[in-house]
Amino acid sequence: MASSSLSPKHLVSLSTHRTTSLSKPPSTAADFFLRFRNSDSVSLRCSSLSSQLNRNGAPACRMKVSATSAAQVVAQPPSNTTSTVPTIVDVDLGDRSYPIYIGSGLLDQPHLLQKHVHGKRVLVVTNTTVAPICLDKVVSALTHGNPNVSVESVILPDGEKYKNMDTLMKVFDKAIESRLDRRCTFVALGGGVIGDMCGFAAAAFLRGVNFIQIPTTVMAQVDSSVGGKTGINHRLGKNLIGAFYQPECVLIDTDTLNTLPERELASGLAEVIKYGLIRDAEFFEWQEKNMPALMARDPNALAYAIKRSCENKAEVVSLDEKESGLRATLNLGHTFGHAIETGFGYGQWLHGEAVAAGMVMAVDMSYRLGWIDDSIVKRTLDILQAAKLPITPPETMTVEMFKSVMAVDKKVADGLLRLILLKGPLGNCVFTGDYDRKALDETLHAFCK
Amino acid sequence: MASSSLSPKHLVSLSTHRTTSLSKPPSTAADFFLRFRNSDSVSLRCSSLSSQLNRNGAPACRMKVSATSAAQVVAQPPSNTTSTVPTIVDVDLGDRSYPIYIGSGLLDQPHLLQKHVHGKRVLVVTNTTVAPICLDKVVSALTHGNPNVSVESVILPDGEKYKNMDTLMKVFDKAIESRLDRRCTFVALGGGVIGDMCGFAAAAFLRGVNFIQIPTTVMAQVDSSVGGKTGINHRLGKNLIGAFYQPECVLIDTDTLNTLPERELASGLAEVIKYGLIRDAEFFEWQEKNMPALMARDPNALAYAIKRSCENKAEVVSLDEKESGLRATLNLGHTFGHAIETGFGYGQWLHGEAVAAGMVMAVDMSYRLGWIDDSIVKRTLDILQAAKLPITPPETMTVEMFKSVMAVDKKVADGLLRLILLKGPLGNCVFTGDYDRKALDETLHAFCK
Repeated sequence: MASSSLSPKHLVSLSTHRTTSLSKPPSTAADFFLRFRNSDSVSLRCSSLSSQLNRNGAPACRMKVSATSAAQVVAQPPSNTTSTVPTIVDVDLGDRSYPIYIGSGLLDQPHLLQKHVHGKRVLVVTNTTVAPICLDKVVSALTHGNPNVSVESVILPDGEKYKNMDTLMKVFDKAIESRLDRRCTFVALGGGVIGDMCGFAAAAFLRGVNFIQIPTTVMAQVDSSVGGKTGINHRLGKNLIGAFYQPECVLIDTDTLNTLPERELASGLAEVIKYGLIRDAEFFEWQEKNMPALMARDPNALAYAIKRSCENKAEVVSLDEKESGLRATLNLGHTFGHAIETGFGYGQWLHGEAVAAGMVMAVDMSYRLGWIDDSIVKRTLDILQAAKLPITPPETMTVEMFKSVMAVDKKVADGLLRLILLKGPLGNCVFTGDYDRKALDETLHAFCK
Repeated sequence: MASSSLSPKHLVSLSTHRTTSLSKPPSTAADFFLRFRNSDSVSLRCSSLSSQLNRNGAPACRMKVSATSAAQVVAQPPSNTTSTVPTIVDVDLGDRSYPIYIGSGLLDQPHLLQKHVHGKRVLVVTNTTVAPICLDKVVSALTHGNPNVSVESVILPDGEKYKNMDTLMKVFDKAIESRLDRRCTFVALGGGVIGDMCGFAAAAFLRGVNFIQIPTTVMAQVDSSVGGKTGINHRLGKNLIGAFYQPECVLIDTDTLNTLPERELASGLAEVIKYGLIRDAEFFEWQEKNMPALMARDPNALAYAIKRSCENKAEVVSLDEKESGLRATLNLGHTFGHAIETGFGYGQWLHGEAVAAGMVMAVDMSYRLGWIDDSIVKRTLDILQAAKLPITPPETMTVEMFKSVMAVDKKVADGLLRLILLKGPLGNCVFTGDYDRKALDETLHAFCK
C-alpha cells in the first residue's frame, strides 16, 4: 500500500513482504513497520513537497509518484487478504500533529490503536449499521493484551438526519453516566456523520478529551476524518455548530470498505475527484484511467486513491487549519451541495452525491465566467458519470431554495458569498467573492426549472 | 481605579483627573487612556511579578501594591459618578492574549468595545434581569458613531437552572436565523451563566466566532469572565460540556454592580476570598480589613478587589490555560460546592454560596490532614461570615450525595479524585490525589447529618 510514495527498493520490500534491505529481517509486521517508519515519512514529505511544486508548474520529483500509479497498483497482491504494513500520512500541525495509518487488516494490529489511547477508559461511538460489522473487532483491538482498558460504546441511529443536537446528547449522556473522566479516549467508528459527531463530543466533553478516528466509508477515509472539522447540523443548515478539534490518529483499515454499499462508495469518490479538480491534475488523470478499478473496488486502486487524497488534505490542513483561505478550496461544489442537502432534506441524497452535482454547477459557473475552457467541463461530467454520480441537482430544487440556504453558508463574510471556482488549467481553483453575480444567477437558472 | 497598581505619580494623575506629568494635557479620557497605557502596563507587570515573588516569601515590590490598599481606596472620589480611565489587566496567552478593562463608566466609552468588534454584525446574549438595565447602553456603545454595525440580541431566562443545552440552542437559533456569518461578534452581557453559555456558543457557532465578555456580577467580574472556560451543565453535573475559548476582551464596568442583589454580591466575594486563601495572603489580609467596605459596595474597594482578583486569575491562566495542574487550584471548595449545587438542585444556592461552604469543607479537611494550623480555619470562617456567606452545606445534603456527584467531577483522573487543599502558611495550597481518604470521610461526616 505504501509503495506509491516510496523508492523502488522500498516498494519491493513492502509489496512482497519477503525481501528487505534491513540487516536483520523483521520478526513481525509491527516490527517491520516500526523500523520502516522513518524512511516512509521521508518519502511522504518528498511527495508532499512535489505536489506543491507541481501546482506551480514544475513537475520535478512528482514523477516518482505518478510512475507508480495505475500499472503498479494493479500489479500488487490484493491487500484485503492479510494484514499489511500501514502507509503513514502525517498531518503536520505542530504539537497537534498526527498520523493517518492506511492499509488492509490494520484492526488486526492492536498496537496501532493502543499507542494512541490515553487513560484506561474508552468510549466507542458508532452506529447501528457499522456496529454489527466492526464493533467487536475494534473492542478487541483496544483491549487485546491490555486488560486495564475498559471500553464502553454508544450506538447511534445511522444517517445524516441524525447528525443533530439530540443525537449528540446521547453521547454525552453515555460518557457521563459511565463516569468517564478527562483521561478517557473517544473513538469514532463509522462514516463522516459519526466522525463529525464523535469529534465534536470529544471536543466538548469536559472541555476536551482524547479522540481517535476509525473511518469506515470512502467519504470519511478520504476527507471528513482528516483535518479536525467536527460538528452537527442545525435545521437551517449543515455543520453550523461544531469545533476545530484534531484527532490523536486516524486509522483507515481498507477492509472496512468490503461491505460498503455501492452508493456510499460513489459518494466518497466525489471527494476524490474534487482533489483532482482543485489541486492535483495528475491525480485527476490517474482517476480517469482507474475509475473502473475504483468502482470494482480493486483494493490497491482504492488504497492509492485514499492515500493520495489524504496527502492532499493533510497538506492543505497543515497550511491553513482554521480555514482562513486555502482550506476553503476543499469545499468545491459544497456550497451548492449543502443547499441541495438542506433544501432536499438531509439524508435524501448522500453528501458526495450532492457535492457531485454541486461541483458540476461550480464548474459550469467557472466556464460562464470564462475562467476555464470547455474541456474541463466535459472531463468533469465524464468522470462523475463514470463514478455513477449525479450531474444535476434534484428536480425539486428551485433557484430560491439555493439562494436561501447559500445565504447562511459559513463562507459568507460580511454578507458576501464567496465560492470556490476553477480558474486556469485543470488542477487550479480560486476561493473568491469577486465574481460576476450574473454568472451565479445563470448557473442557478440553468440547473433549476 | 487604576491607582492601586500604579506609581504614586500616576496615582495622583489618575485619581484627580487634573494634574498629569505629560507634556500636553489629554483632551479626552480616551486620549488620556491611550497615552497612559504603556506605563500602566509596566506597573501591572511589576505587580504581577511581585505577587509571584510574594508567594515565594519575598515581599519586594509588592509593597507598592499593598501600600495603596484600604486607605487610598477610601480617599479616592466615588468612581460611579463619571467615566474613568480603565485599569488594564493583561491575560498573556501568546496570540490569544487579551485585555481586561476595569473601571466605572466604561460603557460610556464606545471605543473600548468597538475596537474589539470583528465584522459588522453583533449578537448580544443577555438575560431577562440584565437586559432592562444594561442592554440599551451596550447597544449604544456598540453602535455610537459606527452606523455600519448592526446588533441583534437574544434574551435568555435568568438562572443557573437554564444553563443547559435547550437554552444554548436558543442562541444558535437566533444567530442562524439572523444569518450571522463567521465575521460576527458575540457579546456576553450578564453574570457567569450568560458568560459561560455565550462563550460556548461563540466557540461552537460556525466552529468559532469572535467573543467579548461584559460581566455584570462580582462573580463574573472576578472569576468566570476571565480565562476562557465556557460551557453548560448536564443534569448529572456542572460544566460537563464546554470548551476552552478565550474572549477578545473583558470589559468590566463597575457601575453594573449598582443594581446587583445582596446575595449576588456576597456570592462573588466567595471567589475573591478564594484567591487570598490559595495564593495571596496579603490580599486576604486586605480583605479582612476591608470586608465592611466591600459589603457596603464602596466602589473603590470593589474596584481594587476586582483588579487584584483578575491579576491573580490572569497569572494562573497564563501559566496553565488548559488546567493541567496549577489552574485547578482556582477550584478550591468547588468540588464540594459543585456537589452541593448538583445535589441540592441548580439555582437553589448561588455558585459562590456553594463554594463558600465547599471552601470551609476543604479547609476542614486540610486541617484534619495536619496540613494547616487552626488559625487559618478560624480566619476562613470569620471572613466568610463577615461576607454573609454560608459556612455549612444545606442540611439535606448526605455523605452519599457528595460522593456520588464528586465521582463525576472533571478533576477525577483514572478514577482518582484530586482535590485542592490548603497546605502550609496562609496563601499556599496543593492540588493532589495523594491524601488520606479517612480525612475526606471524616469531613463529609462532620458536615452531613
